[in-house]
Amino acid sequence: MKKISFFLMACTILFSCTTTETKKTEKKVNDFAIIIHGGAGTILKKNMTEEKEKEYKAKLEEAIRVGYTILQNGGTSQDAVIKTIQVMEESPLFNAGKGAVFTNAGTNELDASFMDGKTLNAGAVAGVTDVKSPIELAVKVMTDSEHVMLSGKGASTFAKEKGLEIVEPSYFYTERRFKSLERIREREKTELDHDDKTAAFYDSDIKNAKFGTVGCVALDKNGNIAAGTSTGGMTNKRWGRIGDAPIIGSGTYANNKTCGVSSTGWGEYFIRSQVAYDISAQMEYQNKTLKEATTDVIQNKLTKLGGTGGVVALDKNGNMSFEFNTAGMYRASMDDDGNLVIKIYKE
Amino acid sequence: MKKISFFLMACTILFSCTTTETKKTEKKVNDFAIIIHGGAGTILKKNMTEEKEKEYKAKLEEAIRVGYTILQNGGTSQDAVIKTIQVMEESPLFNAGKGAVFTNAGTNELDASFMDGKTLNAGAVAGVTDVKSPIELAVKVMTDSEHVMLSGKGASTFAKEKGLEIVEPSYFYTERRFKSLERIREREKTELDHDDKTAAFYDSDIKNAKFGTVGCVALDKNGNIAAGTSTGGMTNKRWGRIGDAPIIGSGTYANNKTCGVSSTGWGEYFIRSQVAYDISAQMEYQNKTLKEATTDVIQNKLTKLGGTGGVVALDKNGNMSFEFNTAGMYRASMDDDGNLVIKIYKE
Repeated sequence: MKKISFFLMACTILFSCTTTETKKTEKKVNDFAIIIHGGAGTILKKNMTEEKEKEYKAKLEEAIRVGYTILQNGGTSQDAVIKTIQVMEESPLFNAGKGAVFTNAGTNELDASFMDGKTLNAGAVAGVTDVKSPIELAVKVMTDSEHVMLSGKGASTFAKEKGLEIVEPSYFYTERRFKSLERIREREKTELDHDDKTAAFYDSDIKNAKFGTVGCVALDKNGNIAAGTSTGGMTNKRWGRIGDAPIIGSGTYANNKTCGVSSTGWGEYFIRSQVAYDISAQMEYQNKTLKEATTDVIQNKLTKLGGTGGVVALDKNGNMSFEFNTAGMYRASMDDDGNLVIKIYKE
Repeated sequence: MKKISFFLMACTILFSCTTTETKKTEKKVNDFAIIIHGGAGTILKKNMTEEKEKEYKAKLEEAIRVGYTILQNGGTSQDAVIKTIQVMEESPLFNAGKGAVFTNAGTNELDASFMDGKTLNAGAVAGVTDVKSPIELAVKVMTDSEHVMLSGKGASTFAKEKGLEIVEPSYFYTERRFKSLERIREREKTELDHDDKTAAFYDSDIKNAKFGTVGCVALDKNGNIAAGTSTGGMTNKRWGRIGDAPIIGSGTYANNKTCGVSSTGWGEYFIRSQVAYDISAQMEYQNKTLKEATTDVIQNKLTKLGGTGGVVALDKNGNMSFEFNTAGMYRASMDDDGNLVIKIYKE
């Protein structure tokens, strides 16, 4: 009897310390996969027309199918991420590329970043005003310079030297975003509290725009993960503010050993929380699943700090995760069977 | 006999899975402490005059004693970090503030960042040309704006609005650094290979300057950890290049739960490796000691990627660690008994 109890005790202990090591399933669920977001925020059905909803869903589908086709035909995750994000950059629906929000100075200043999970190489740009595709420029910084991050006029000069498409700053103008800026300016005049944040937070359009970053993470048939993020930042931003979108480890991270992540939300909190890299670190160091890691980082750590927003993430086995603590996040995913998921609200 | 073997087996298993949890000593070794660096690089005794060595050691001691006195008198780690770094910013010996290296355009563009381990709040500035103390500005961004990171002219405008000391860009000029730039320019003219990196790497002064960032981490009597980093970046940098110094999680990180870190080295690799936050993550998630975490991140992960440089780090119990994979790092530390350590070369 005692023998048995000893044996059971031994087994219990053995089990208790091996569970964490065996918890994460290493089964490949998708040979290739792609997941995207078009921003998170207080996106509520009651504030949305059916037409607008259709518009967003159609653009998300158009964008993700471009990347999906590239992956299906054996293309690279890098190419899939660039081309997918470019569809969203070219759409005025999202706060990236055309449709970017306006700074306090009435300009559009764009940020983007990209990371390659195979080499851990990365590229990023901040405060670009005349480069049509910030995500393409971020990748160019990675492939054609010794640097990871370029900013402002210097980044534009680099883009010109590399032959990227340059546009008039007016290319990024949209009436909707400019009106958002005007509404903030009006409020700042009439309010005692001139804090941008307070002003911005009375206006759901501005509030959402602030979170309207776009991003994409893809896994290709060679097992390479790539992640990218592109944004116009926050309406009425001033002082050359840089958010999390161009910050490797905060807005974007990719590592073939673990996962790829693209963030969207209140950038300052995403930088302080190291959101993108922290998800990878929890998978690598705590052997968490992608779902466990994204849940802890967004629902627990980021939320405790007071941050709002979300991420799309994808691991080396093709598991995918949408995670956000806002009312909604424009998002879509496609697995290797071509199953398409498109969602906007919390479900 | 069998009983005993079962019992031994149980104990062995029990021991084997508890060791990792009990490995890290939680004993407080210092009520307060401070550690600094003045840059890492190929600093070799044979290239150093006794006089120059004395000069560096004297400045490092002057700087660290300023912070030590603040901590000893019950001041905050934030104040200690700012004041200590300002001594180094004002010295032409280091590549921060006065003595910053020159960009390709012949200007000085300064970066700095700061993080508060209690609130996980942070501030950073990139590409500042006329603010006397970039570290002071980084802290101001944290305390007086809703943002974490400001850049370029906008950051200067913010500094002026907040009444920080503005200087003529010429304040940062030093003949030594300007000559370094001229040497690179000469080389670029005469070399077939015009890659900055290659050019820069023929010149040990430039090579070291590239790593000449300054940083400080402090633990105060209230158990609050603060970390800060300030730099002029790399000689001949162009395109508005931003290195790791102003990137929270790469150049600077602080968390009262784990540790504080300030990095110095080849910024691009420190961003890709998430050096500063990774040390904290390994302590939090793998229960590593400060020494184990800094060793793995610098000697193993960073080195494998091809990155060079180092960190100074300090944990919540007052343990301190210098870790670098270069020939030398200007560094100093002081514990709560006032024991001063000042070193330059690998030992």
